[in-house]
Amino acid sequence: MPTNPRPAFVSLDGIDGTGKTTQLNLLAERLRGLGVPVTVCTDPGGTDLGAKLREILLYGRSTQMSMRAEALMFMASRAELVERIIRPALAREEVVLSDRFLLANVVYQGHAGGLDPADLWTIGRFSTGGIEPDRVIVLDLPVEVAKARRPGTADRVESRDDWYFQRVRDGFLMEARERPDTHRIIDARGPVDAVADAIFADVQELLAKHRLMQ
Amino acid sequence: MPTNPRPAFVSLDGIDGTGKTTQLNLLAERLRGLGVPVTVCTDPGGTDLGAKLREILLYGRSTQMSMRAEALMFMASRAELVERIIRPALAREEVVLSDRFLLANVVYQGHAGGLDPADLWTIGRFSTGGIEPDRVIVLDLPVEVAKARRPGTADRVESRDDWYFQRVRDGFLMEARERPDTHRIIDARGPVDAVADAIFADVQELLAKHRLMQ
Repeated sequence: MPTNPRPAFVSLDGIDGTGKTTQLNLLAERLRGLGVPVTVCTDPGGTDLGAKLREILLYGRSTQMSMRAEALMFMASRAELVERIIRPALAREEVVLSDRFLLANVVYQGHAGGLDPADLWTIGRFSTGGIEPDRVIVLDLPVEVAKARRPGTADRVESRDDWYFQRVRDGFLMEARERPDTHRIIDARGPVDAVADAIFADVQELLAKHRLMQ
Repeated sequence: MPTNPRPAFVSLDGIDGTGKTTQLNLLAERLRGLGVPVTVCTDPGGTDLGAKLREILLYGRSTQMSMRAEALMFMASRAELVERIIRPALAREEVVLSDRFLLANVVYQGHAGGLDPADLWTIGRFSTGGIEPDRVIVLDLPVEVAKARRPGTADRVESRDDWYFQRVRDGFLMEARERPDTHRIIDARGPVDAVADAIFADVQELLAKHRLMQ
């Protein structure tokens, strides 16, 4: 019995330097080339409010900000992104690809930042009004490899020390392993094309299940 | 057996036009006149981050903002206010007087804004890291009286309609009545001095209990 297509929401995450943004764009191009309608977004960002908060969060070095305040601003930006961009795109039965999402808060401000990851999941569910990714792809790299790949200029979060990033990496791996139904860890050490193929294969399987692709 | 003084945290809240800010300043002056060290703050606001968020929240009419995003931005501003101003002042054994606090979010975005008040209490406790007012004074006025008292120019929240403010007033009364240990409702219809006396009498009782005053 044929069923209607279901929209699909995919986020890509991982420590800085894993090639998330490059891979997100490659995936979007590939899906569009196959006729799949795609909406791409970036969290934090993607709305007027998100742009203002992103500016304060990532480039406002002069603005003192506690870890709790930082986490809540990411949550506010995400609430707006879901409401204005993600929810409408899913309603149009598109595939939404998000560059980072809630998992990043759980890991950066929770595992690495000292806040309780469980609190961040709870507030995250409030911020998204219950919209969660069908697939979260974690691109994984050893911290020293990721660091070498990052450009010279670092934003406010990127400029924290190696120890912080080790906890970030460990947090991503731990959270992803605890959620095998929706989360996938993909080794990002290989050449760009090989990583892109691995991501595409996984997303293709998801979209077939949602009847958005063969 | 004499015990050491305990710091005290008092917030004043209520619909716009009840004279909160005037009363807060009168109370601060009166306490200082009696030699009680007082820190006064405004929520949202009071920090660099808070000032930026307050600007977006109250005067950023061009910035579209969902109710969830609005609530989370108030929470972010409050997290910073607690961390930078309130917690250190309490550590110095001062009396902290805050113009609005978490209850306002519960009422404005919850009771009046359609979000679940229980969610807002939960996120609020995260935002404050567990610091809660020892006393919350709700100044109460009928909506039409409060409206007549407000100045001609309204901020983004103040410019909502009467029906919204009726739900705000009802929300304040309901939440305060459910928390009689810490919350007091004070009728704000009388002359400024009479209202100030009623507030002072209540705070005096609290401060005596905390051994901050006779």
